[in-house]
Amino acid sequence: MQKAPKKIVVAYSGGLDTSVMVHWLKREYGSEIVAYCADVGQAEELHGLREKALATGASEVFIEDLREELVGEFLLPAIQAGAVYERQYLLGTALARPVIARRQVEIARRTGADAVAHGATGKGNDQVRFELAFAALAPELTVLAPWRTWPFRGRSELIAYAKEYAIPVSATLEKPYSIDRNLMHCSFEGGVLEDPWAAPPPDMRLLTADPKTAPETGEVLTIEFAAGLPVAVDGLRLQGVALFETLNARAGKHGVGRIDLVENRYVGIKSRGVYETPAGTVLHAAHRALETITMDREAMQLKDSLQTRIAGLIYNGFWFSPEFAAVMALVQATQKNVTGTVRLELYKGGVQVLGRKSPLSLFSPALATFEKDEVYDQSKATGFIELTALRLKSGAQLQGGTFHGVPPDHH
Amino acid sequence: MQKAPKKIVVAYSGGLDTSVMVHWLKREYGSEIVAYCADVGQAEELHGLREKALATGASEVFIEDLREELVGEFLLPAIQAGAVYERQYLLGTALARPVIARRQVEIARRTGADAVAHGATGKGNDQVRFELAFAALAPELTVLAPWRTWPFRGRSELIAYAKEYAIPVSATLEKPYSIDRNLMHCSFEGGVLEDPWAAPPPDMRLLTADPKTAPETGEVLTIEFAAGLPVAVDGLRLQGVALFETLNARAGKHGVGRIDLVENRYVGIKSRGVYETPAGTVLHAAHRALETITMDREAMQLKDSLQTRIAGLIYNGFWFSPEFAAVMALVQATQKNVTGTVRLELYKGGVQVLGRKSPLSLFSPALATFEKDEVYDQSKATGFIELTALRLKSGAQLQGGTFHGVPPDHH
Amino acid sequence: MQKAPKKIVVAYSGGLDTSVMVHWLKREYGSEIVAYCADVGQAEELHGLREKALATGASEVFIEDLREELVGEFLLPAIQAGAVYERQYLLGTALARPVIARRQVEIARRTGADAVAHGATGKGNDQVRFELAFAALAPELTVLAPWRTWPFRGRSELIAYAKEYAIPVSATLEKPYSIDRNLMHCSFEGGVLEDPWAAPPPDMRLLTADPKTAPETGEVLTIEFAAGLPVAVDGLRLQGVALFETLNARAGKHGVGRIDLVENRYVGIKSRGVYETPAGTVLHAAHRALETITMDREAMQLKDSLQTRIAGLIYNGFWFSPEFAAVMALVQATQKNVTGTVRLELYKGGVQVLGRKSPLSLFSPALATFEKDEVYDQSKATGFIELTALRLKSGAQLQGGTFHGVPPDHH
Amino acid sequence: MQKAPKKIVVAYSGGLDTSVMVHWLKREYGSEIVAYCADVGQAEELHGLREKALATGASEVFIEDLREELVGEFLLPAIQAGAVYERQYLLGTALARPVIARRQVEIARRTGADAVAHGATGKGNDQVRFELAFAALAPELTVLAPWRTWPFRGRSELIAYAKEYAIPVSATLEKPYSIDRNLMHCSFEGGVLEDPWAAPPPDMRLLTADPKTAPETGEVLTIEFAAGLPVAVDGLRLQGVALFETLNARAGKHGVGRIDLVENRYVGIKSRGVYETPAGTVLHAAHRALETITMDREAMQLKDSLQTRIAGLIYNGFWFSPEFAAVMALVQATQKNVTGTVRLELYKGGVQVLGRKSPLSLFSPALATFEKDEVYDQSKATGFIELTALRLKSGAQLQGGTFHGVPPDHH
Repeated sequence: MQKAPKKIVVAYSGGLDTSVMVHWLKREYGSEIVAYCADVGQAEELHGLREKALATGASEVFIEDLREELVGEFLLPAIQAGAVYERQYLLGTALARPVIARRQVEIARRTGADAVAHGATGKGNDQVRFELAFAALAPELTVLAPWRTWPFRGRSELIAYAKEYAIPVSATLEKPYSIDRNLMHCSFEGGVLEDPWAAPPPDMRLLTADPKTAPETGEVLTIEFAAGLPVAVDGLRLQGVALFETLNARAGKHGVGRIDLVENRYVGIKSRGVYETPAGTVLHAAHRALETITMDREAMQLKDSLQTRIAGLIYNGFWFSPEFAAVMALVQATQKNVTGTVRLELYKGGVQVLGRKSPLSLFSPALATFEKDEVYDQSKATGFIELTALRLKSGAQLQGGTFHGVPPDHH
Repeated sequence: MQKAPKKIVVAYSGGLDTSVMVHWLKREYGSEIVAYCADVGQAEELHGLREKALATGASEVFIEDLREELVGEFLLPAIQAGAVYERQYLLGTALARPVIARRQVEIARRTGADAVAHGATGKGNDQVRFELAFAALAPELTVLAPWRTWPFRGRSELIAYAKEYAIPVSATLEKPYSIDRNLMHCSFEGGVLEDPWAAPPPDMRLLTADPKTAPETGEVLTIEFAAGLPVAVDGLRLQGVALFETLNARAGKHGVGRIDLVENRYVGIKSRGVYETPAGTVLHAAHRALETITMDREAMQLKDSLQTRIAGLIYNGFWFSPEFAAVMALVQATQKNVTGTVRLELYKGGVQVLGRKSPLSLFSPALATFEKDEVYDQSKATGFIELTALRLKSGAQLQGGTFHGVPPDHH
Repeated sequence: MQKAPKKIVVAYSGGLDTSVMVHWLKREYGSEIVAYCADVGQAEELHGLREKALATGASEVFIEDLREELVGEFLLPAIQAGAVYERQYLLGTALARPVIARRQVEIARRTGADAVAHGATGKGNDQVRFELAFAALAPELTVLAPWRTWPFRGRSELIAYAKEYAIPVSATLEKPYSIDRNLMHCSFEGGVLEDPWAAPPPDMRLLTADPKTAPETGEVLTIEFAAGLPVAVDGLRLQGVALFETLNARAGKHGVGRIDLVENRYVGIKSRGVYETPAGTVLHAAHRALETITMDREAMQLKDSLQTRIAGLIYNGFWFSPEFAAVMALVQATQKNVTGTVRLELYKGGVQVLGRKSPLSLFSPALATFEKDEVYDQSKATGFIELTALRLKSGAQLQGGTFHGVPPDHH
Repeated sequence: MQKAPKKIVVAYSGGLDTSVMVHWLKREYGSEIVAYCADVGQAEELHGLREKALATGASEVFIEDLREELVGEFLLPAIQAGAVYERQYLLGTALARPVIARRQVEIARRTGADAVAHGATGKGNDQVRFELAFAALAPELTVLAPWRTWPFRGRSELIAYAKEYAIPVSATLEKPYSIDRNLMHCSFEGGVLEDPWAAPPPDMRLLTADPKTAPETGEVLTIEFAAGLPVAVDGLRLQGVALFETLNARAGKHGVGRIDLVENRYVGIKSRGVYETPAGTVLHAAHRALETITMDREAMQLKDSLQTRIAGLIYNGFWFSPEFAAVMALVQATQKNVTGTVRLELYKGGVQVLGRKSPLSLFSPALATFEKDEVYDQSKATGFIELTALRLKSGAQLQGGTFHGVPPDHH
């Protein structure tokens, strides 16, 4: 239906799938291929990638370090929002997709390409995340998702194709599960995890130690924030990629931030995942602890009431959307005073807040104390409670009340 | 302004405050006093309480075991709702107040009393919780809150009064912090906690071991639920009070469920608290894990989106209110299929879900797998994504897009 | 891809499209065809329909009066919910779809059919509404949407096909817009409405008079409700279909309930519609007016805060879904006391509430009056306001405040 | 308890209450009195007010025209937010309070006053609105609310006091109801309205004609908006106060914008009010109509889902609060593209949108049409619906479905 694109920017990793993809797209459409590899901290070998891509058939190769963009424009805003999908998942994969898609679109424009292609399958969330980003950022581009259209139905057929066309891949055995890694997290999905009753294998860990073999001694650290953003660790200025690397190492060593859950994909499927998010877990805990002393109650509860929605937008791929822009304007309007320091302890898989302080603290010991004081006139509470109770009293008198569960008279 | 009540039901614990209160109210108003003590699992000495109350001036004494009511009608519905105040607090104190107030009202009616009195101070949440419950359940009763009206301004003045009138109290030194305990939790507030930067003292623990001295070996347990309610542990039928006692002991031994936070009181004050909620923490984790495989995505996200509101209603004292009845009707409409078993491990302060299974599971390995399959036609995703993207594409084409943060062209 | 169904229940109206559909499906798949026509108050000719369907090729015909079900199970619950899509549309079409789909599924089961087919096009909401209902109620059935698959591309090709096969249709000229009518409303879409700047033609009215030619004298009516449901008009018991017919006639005569709007379809398209909803408009107004005196403030505001969501679920086709069941449980928990009478005036396109009364009224003149009174102690307001203001005061003192717009010092 | 203030800024109108207030405060506290009168469009006599205030005992007088501030910073943002309290009330009084309080605080600072006083009673919303604004903007000021503390219990006692001290007031008979008027609206409360069953008297109108005597001919007007703000009427640039005056006159002449309702006050009381809001009603309708063609569906529905909350914040007096600042940041992030023109007709109490157009319109006739087209591939809907239905299908297959109301098999 669509006419063949002239030039396609392919999200390329050098692995089996995207290597076959570069070759197959070129053959299928006769298009020129631009290979694009984004460094989001996946810690894979990027050395030799350029040569490999050219040998596979690409005419141009872009290897782009997006790590600072990822941290500054995606990870930290999500932490400010307190975004947690389905009460557990810190959105590591979902947060990396828009930064990758955005640069892919930029490269398409720079190279005059008329199409972009990604290697996500037809059952997952990533296809949606990539394609919604493409739609929002570059509606004029053709989008290709070869996994949904090509004839190959699994790893062995891809390996056969690679052999047939001498595509340089290190074809390995089927892995027992799939992995996605970036500065925020490492995820494990599929294979042995497909039985939600079975515990994940003990070696399913890349970023976090097993708490049982983690150090017997806890480790205390302090994180300093300015206007909702982390700026220092243990008193030393530390930001961006370096901050995440440091915290991933320190928290990972203590086994902090690994979860095992069943989540709901946007395409309507329930899916099991194991996620390791050491730095992210510590930053979420520290940021929230600082909010508790620097943020107004109602502003905080308003933001929290939208958290489910925000996390859903990120998870489902709506980072570049008008509704996300709107709701993040709300989040950012709450962060100005989130300035101060949090002290935490890492120990055996847990992170515990030990203390929080701020030059802008709203915590007033004079108000909080139950000791006698001059600041707060206790008799004021009478009027507060009586007016708050007025509608309940009227309801009880005039309608007999309407209550959850068993009413008192029926015991 | 109000005329003196004839008979007052006083929430009585046998401690210094409420002992003085019984005596003072009788003297102040010339009223008859009914002493009422609710057993909500506070594990305090109830032996000899009747005699003590009579010796202090009460004409009648009620010692009521409310523990099963507390679990069945308050704790478990809150766990079904996933109610967590300000993302951390499991509401242990807030959940016990309505069951205490409800029985107090019943006793007032049974004994023909025209007033009720409580011992909560004028700065906390408990005064509000008691008085909103009284207003909703018995608008005709006079409510007395002596802490807001009597002349005593601290512990030493109460001790002096008790001595003067030979009130039988075991007057002790000022405690370094205040404690509230029931089947759900033990809370610590005030005193040394009033500096939010200072870590809580190591001995501030009643229900949970220090993770550092907890067993080196983890402990695995399974919890079975039927229609959202826990019914068995490790294959043995276990419910109600016995369930909470068992889980408190097992999880407490591993240091599970202790948190340290700053929260916002309803009266407008920020307050520091340390909470130990071993059984509650495990039950929340297990219940949610089971929901992930048995509950529809949208039903779960809808329920979650109201969680902030539900927790706020419980925290602020609105258990007996029309809005709480309404929102809990929604929660309960989601619980019918939350049936199955969860396996968890307790270790060094942490609880980790290992597996979940259900005869009503919505998790379909056939759908979830990334392997080739017959169940799910991947090409369907194309239409799904294209229509989902349509409005984003139109927005980009017709308005140039509206995005959060820096747009792609400006890098 | 799918194997041909043996027997198909076709939603049939006797018009051009569904007549061709009956014939085409039979020819295309060799299936047995059951023609099914639901009477939802569309006021079309049902006489002779059975013969026409048989002549077109159907082997069985079901003509079903669903009007009471529509009113009792769909229209009235939506009015109780106060469901209004995008602040204007009373959901007349969306509410009729689930009752039609539900009976279609029942007939499929009764007749042993293995497929259902509908005549909605591929760009609208109705296809989604039908197919989501089919999925939820009868996941085993094959669903056919011929408009998305057959070769015909417009009215003239359908007419040609009908002529070729001698299908008995009264082939008429292309209408200038499309109409959908049932007991709740009449909608107009397409054609001349596709320019959102152009006013709808004056004759685009079936249920409502033009206010300019409506009676010069207003008409007063009273509606009585019990537990949120209308039960009488002007003191005479009137319910169900008869109630809607009466109110449609009376309100329509005065031109009440016609709106003209642009709405967002679920498939991502903006669409212009004109809707006439005379009875529905009056019932919504009356029901809300009664809620204002019988419903607790917080219960009402909670319900209202979910209204956008509820209306979206109905509009998008999720009537038979777990999330809709949950949210409607909340709505229904609020309706018990919505009992009483509302007086309204209809005049020249407007409906104005004149009065409301209830045996369960929460409106207390003694409380509301600004006159001196004994019921409400004005000094209580001081404590109420001071505690409510406490966090704002702390914020101003400790953080300098955080306000919308220009702060006071900068004028 | 508080020591007497040295200088008090009194919100003064020249009427009986605030005249007595100026005198009484001076006498009671021996304070210096600054009389402050805000012009918010109440159309009362301001001539001679300065002399009257000085004669009553004020040492300084400020008469301030706040009308442009009111429109630009309060009325228009509320219209952008679509803020409607309890689905009907356009918040006319609530919107004027913060602008009055803000200037009062500025005058207190300018004149070195240490206290502010207002004339609102102890049962209404206005006391809360004034005092929350004072708390947020000037926590250091003492706030006096004489109605809650002075000995006078009604109009006759005030008149007696005025006579005794020769305070220059035009003491009139008790009015049958109270009136509040500004550029946004005129409100009527109390007196004859205290029976919610009784229709308001026909002469209870200041800004709107009775539809029955309004012109027999409708009037068409166009309003142009730029970025969510009205900028022209009928093609002529018209903004701010002049815009409101013009629209009040034109819409008022046709009886547009009068409502009669029972609302819930923040202090827990239900109250009856009649409101005339001609310009506001037209602007709300026009602004929303323009949003429907220029605003993304999800952004609009997100904004709408917060509308109940926003209106509640305004109604209850939280204009100057961190949560309002946050939620208005969200609103404003949605307004950038709300640019274009709306055509409306005013007739006999109604306002009807006739057309809307925009250079940034998202309405695409090519997409919306049901005619054959090239833009939208109808087969895409199949995948969209199938994936959307997937979870419903799974739920039906694995759990038998969970539906609202009566399931299909039980008919």
